[in-house]
Amino acid sequence: MYRNLFLFLCFIMVLTGHAQSIESPNRQLNLTFHVDNGIPYYSLLYKGKIIIEKSRLGFEMKNIPSMVDNFSILKSSTSAFDETWEPVWGEVKKIRNQYNELEITLEQGSPKRTVIIRFRLYDDGLGFRYEFPNQKNLSYFTIAEEITQFNLGKDYTAFWIRGDYDTNEYNYTTSLLSEVSHQIDAATEEISAQTPTKEISVQTPLMLKGNGVYINIHEAALKDYPAMLLELDSTGVILSTHLTPDPLGGKGRMQTATQTPWRTILISDNAADILASKTILNLNEPNKIEDTSWIKPMKYIGVWWEMFIPNGGSWAYADTSNIKLDEIDYSRIEPNGRHAANTENVKRYIDFAAKHGFDGVLVEGWNIGWEDWFGTMKENVFDFVTPYPDFDLNELKKYAAQKGVKLIMHHETSASIPNYERRMNEAYQFMKDNGYDAVKSGYVGTIIPLGEHHYGQTMVNHYLRAIEKGADYKIMINAHEPVRPTGMHRTYPNYLAAESARGTEYEALGNIKPDHQTILPFTRLIGGPMDYTPGIFQTDFSYYDPNVKNRVNTTLSKQLALYVTMYSPLQMAADLPENYERFADAFQFIKDVPVDWDDTRILEAEPGDYITIARKKKGEDEWFIGSITDENKRVSNIRLNFLDPGKNYIATIYADGEDADYETRPQSYTIKNYRVNSKSELAIPIARSGGYAIHIKENSSQTN
Amino acid sequence: MYRNLFLFLCFIMVLTGHAQSIESPNRQLNLTFHVDNGIPYYSLLYKGKIIIEKSRLGFEMKNIPSMVDNFSILKSSTSAFDETWEPVWGEVKKIRNQYNELEITLEQGSPKRTVIIRFRLYDDGLGFRYEFPNQKNLSYFTIAEEITQFNLGKDYTAFWIRGDYDTNEYNYTTSLLSEVSHQIDAATEEISAQTPTKEISVQTPLMLKGNGVYINIHEAALKDYPAMLLELDSTGVILSTHLTPDPLGGKGRMQTATQTPWRTILISDNAADILASKTILNLNEPNKIEDTSWIKPMKYIGVWWEMFIPNGGSWAYADTSNIKLDEIDYSRIEPNGRHAANTENVKRYIDFAAKHGFDGVLVEGWNIGWEDWFGTMKENVFDFVTPYPDFDLNELKKYAAQKGVKLIMHHETSASIPNYERRMNEAYQFMKDNGYDAVKSGYVGTIIPLGEHHYGQTMVNHYLRAIEKGADYKIMINAHEPVRPTGMHRTYPNYLAAESARGTEYEALGNIKPDHQTILPFTRLIGGPMDYTPGIFQTDFSYYDPNVKNRVNTTLSKQLALYVTMYSPLQMAADLPENYERFADAFQFIKDVPVDWDDTRILEAEPGDYITIARKKKGEDEWFIGSITDENKRVSNIRLNFLDPGKNYIATIYADGEDADYETRPQSYTIKNYRVNSKSELAIPIARSGGYAIHIKENSSQTN
Repeated sequence: MYRNLFLFLCFIMVLTGHAQSIESPNRQLNLTFHVDNGIPYYSLLYKGKIIIEKSRLGFEMKNIPSMVDNFSILKSSTSAFDETWEPVWGEVKKIRNQYNELEITLEQGSPKRTVIIRFRLYDDGLGFRYEFPNQKNLSYFTIAEEITQFNLGKDYTAFWIRGDYDTNEYNYTTSLLSEVSHQIDAATEEISAQTPTKEISVQTPLMLKGNGVYINIHEAALKDYPAMLLELDSTGVILSTHLTPDPLGGKGRMQTATQTPWRTILISDNAADILASKTILNLNEPNKIEDTSWIKPMKYIGVWWEMFIPNGGSWAYADTSNIKLDEIDYSRIEPNGRHAANTENVKRYIDFAAKHGFDGVLVEGWNIGWEDWFGTMKENVFDFVTPYPDFDLNELKKYAAQKGVKLIMHHETSASIPNYERRMNEAYQFMKDNGYDAVKSGYVGTIIPLGEHHYGQTMVNHYLRAIEKGADYKIMINAHEPVRPTGMHRTYPNYLAAESARGTEYEALGNIKPDHQTILPFTRLIGGPMDYTPGIFQTDFSYYDPNVKNRVNTTLSKQLALYVTMYSPLQMAADLPENYERFADAFQFIKDVPVDWDDTRILEAEPGDYITIARKKKGEDEWFIGSITDENKRVSNIRLNFLDPGKNYIATIYADGEDADYETRPQSYTIKNYRVNSKSELAIPIARSGGYAIHIKENSSQTN
Repeated sequence: MYRNLFLFLCFIMVLTGHAQSIESPNRQLNLTFHVDNGIPYYSLLYKGKIIIEKSRLGFEMKNIPSMVDNFSILKSSTSAFDETWEPVWGEVKKIRNQYNELEITLEQGSPKRTVIIRFRLYDDGLGFRYEFPNQKNLSYFTIAEEITQFNLGKDYTAFWIRGDYDTNEYNYTTSLLSEVSHQIDAATEEISAQTPTKEISVQTPLMLKGNGVYINIHEAALKDYPAMLLELDSTGVILSTHLTPDPLGGKGRMQTATQTPWRTILISDNAADILASKTILNLNEPNKIEDTSWIKPMKYIGVWWEMFIPNGGSWAYADTSNIKLDEIDYSRIEPNGRHAANTENVKRYIDFAAKHGFDGVLVEGWNIGWEDWFGTMKENVFDFVTPYPDFDLNELKKYAAQKGVKLIMHHETSASIPNYERRMNEAYQFMKDNGYDAVKSGYVGTIIPLGEHHYGQTMVNHYLRAIEKGADYKIMINAHEPVRPTGMHRTYPNYLAAESARGTEYEALGNIKPDHQTILPFTRLIGGPMDYTPGIFQTDFSYYDPNVKNRVNTTLSKQLALYVTMYSPLQMAADLPENYERFADAFQFIKDVPVDWDDTRILEAEPGDYITIARKKKGEDEWFIGSITDENKRVSNIRLNFLDPGKNYIATIYADGEDADYETRPQSYTIKNYRVNSKSELAIPIARSGGYAIHIKENSSQTN
């Protein structure tokens, strides 16, 4: 009866053409949709303040009439949803998915076409998408541009990287939106295979701060559609979608029934809420993988960082160039003597992993083709199944199995997609035949097919294809250089992690700003876990070569904290085994820190400044805290009120030493034990680009 | 000693900078190469007449200095070659490969780079190519344009189709080269997925006639390189290479050591020599397939033409549209009742094939996806392994095997290459599992990857990949809409035939000019066999529907002659079984004509006018003659002096009836037997767009 009344009200609204509105379950957000002169608009209030002013919705089309105006509301309905689900792995044990929904069916005049806009309003934000149902006058079509506006109306401080179709490995710039256009050239660091947009644009997740609120704009469930950039108008405060084009300039080849990804706007007056939000996960489809028993969060080491340090090893077996995969005979080529992925060295890593309890060992450079893998536009660059002559596949398979360690496969594609897709079945089967359950894939370079981009629809489909096929083979995926995640790991939990941002490798390849890690959780990680590869203890490269001036721009303690602040079910201890042995006491934290959690508390958070997070180990009453700061030293004040009241705990605190400083004394740290309980308050000083890590467990000595 | 002397002479030539020359084995052709002001040129004489005037050689490059000038001759050498080889199948039993070779190594100044130009001079023409050896300053590079000229110096009558990156299914135009630019727009018939060049260009093989000679320009061994068009200068008489671009405008991504295809110029004062030439085959690499026992020329019928006739059948099972391969449930869709590839109908074809001795039955439309397979730019268009519900795969497998008939697979790709390549292993394995040894593949539509073209390097590589993988699976290939052949069937004899020109289907889809079949052997077929699909007896479509005005523009007898004049190891009898039953006496010729030959004699030939060819059946003393004419009636005068002297033969002559005419009485024909021997001379009248076919066998009645 109540429901019938509601439908009647809807009907009334259609007739009078009034605006349609919904509120979030907590009533703090208010979404309004209306059609004005045939043009659809939405706007969004937070606690009565306008966050998104009247903003357009619609599509320019290729070769057919646009879908931007001449609309009327055919029908509208609202509904409410509330469920709680358990992720296969994650930051928390259970996730509540509660929203109010507004579904608007718009009809266009001649030709008569319909599009549904579905709004889902959560307590911490909005998701909305376009749905194109089956209909007579629209089946196959190509989008020229999506016309979705985010009209902020006011200037905000933005944490941004330049809009680019092929890379997101930039340092972040912090500036007012109105300043982006002036700073964009300076922000465009040189990166291989980059394609910055001609227009002034930034990438998502875009973090904004100002006017008393924190806003994050991104997308959820990006599938069979180009990734979205945000183009700025001349004032900088009206953002609009700028999709990644295909080689013919199209921006989405569509076939009804279909839909766009969700456009997401997270909002709070507390930055911590942005980090804690599960809205992007909730907007994704539930897990599609029936048997998930083989999906396991992992902590790993790898033959990797030694290729980045001065005078380090090489991926390539030889220093030759101009090789052809089907002609080269490595037995007749002189090795360069620096090839890191050799049997002996890999055994050393396996030994270290076994000794210290790591699940896996990644080995890069194991397979033939690295001599000139990059920048040649060669299509047939790797075969993914032929090891170098000094990498004894069978011996290492046996050795790793004996030691209870999993080898992790590496598939660098050099962005040559047809080659990878042609070989993928064989490559995945080869993995299973040789005991590999996880693969780190790479997409470095200019995309083949030519004219395609890393973030275009074709590539978006490829990344997902690799994940889906991975699920068929029971393979976990860690993709580097794919499109940035949009929460698809809810649907495909074998998609453990991705890079898709400036990760630790840039400490060696270029530089990473001290505030980088305080921004990433508000930007890149909003879409999903990042394989940031933290854990560099030897931060100063002059250790390897006195002539090398650059350094990792953090203290050692900050590297520890990253295992907590930078959420991922896949965490690398990236430094060399010998460096961990030199700092065995600090290394203990990396050994102890888990990669799967029952609970997470954001204790402090300010984008670009600091982050402090506490997480509870899966299935155990153990907590781990990580805290980091930017280029400024600070004191972190936290309360341990999340601990079980009445219980006693020991907190082992790994903190910056008194004289620690990321530039002058990065390796100064202290490790101390304290008795703590739920009433404890801590005030911990943090050095410039420093941090601390805490391991809290029940004080078992008291019970004995 | 002689050789040493020769090398010494070469050395002298280098020092003095004189032109380098070679003659053909029969001394009728003379090739000269020289470097003038750093620019390399070649020219060609035939019987003392200049055929190719001073013509440039070289390359414009992308992003690196060009290779067009600043050259000097580093070394040169000549050699002679003579061998005889046996094709796996062909027009003749043995092929002589005899040429004189000139190898020029050119060196460029700064940066120091070398290119080898290799000329091979045959008795009937020239082949030359560029070779880029391994060298310090050139490894990976992209060609901007190949600058190879064919400077004819004089105007010629050309038999041409417009230069286009995606189709060669045009009718031929006959005009002076100087008239091409004026006639090119009229010659540009509308064809799906066409991309005519902006520049005035024509396709190869280009046939020229005039000034007392016949010239054919084409290429041989096109592999990992874009196909060549010929661009005309403002006079029309200087032709130069125009390669098919990639999506970024590049024209060949190269990696040394590598080479271009051979550029070929066939020359004679007798048009028959052009048809008889084996130079393009000889310029290709020898057969790479070790076991060729499974490669068998075939004569076949098929569920095909009935989809082209008025009120005919359909490829699609239903009249729905907007289907998704992984969602559609055909059991819930109403069939259209016209689906031709149904079990019962296929059995009818199998019965007919078995009764009349055909090797195979092609079935198009057997697999799901045809409802909207074309023009949608859908990537996931076919899966190549799922039959329609009314096509009983297992039943037909058994039925065909019982009847001793091979079913021929059909793989229409809709030009969606990534989809086909991802599924190719499975599709080929599916064929083998179900008893299919041959596939007709199709590439209709706009190429995916977007921006690629049918004749670009990426697609050239794809077609070859399909052939090579076919060889792995022991599958014979008949590709429709690929790049036109360049003699690669010598190297891969499982590449039985291709379409790559306007074939019989256009008699229904548009029109075919009466002279078309007199031009094709001089153009398209110069590169390799064509699956022209002749044999249409019911030429007038009003037979099916009185309202339909168009017709097949030949007489019935001409259709018979095509089995001899249009060489292919794969020949279809394209018409409906019931039409063959109506003309059972004429059909006897199609039943008798073989598809593999021990010998071939070109008895008469004039491009665009007429062709008469006699061929000797493989392993038998039986000859078959085909003769066709254009829109003009004529009398064909031939001598049977190729028959064994002293033997007596019976010739069964299938000729146009006295009143035959392709427009008014196409089905008027006569069949008569004559006693003939090697001294016989025949004068046979041919109707407008008519022809005759003769079957000659020993007169066994005399020996009994």
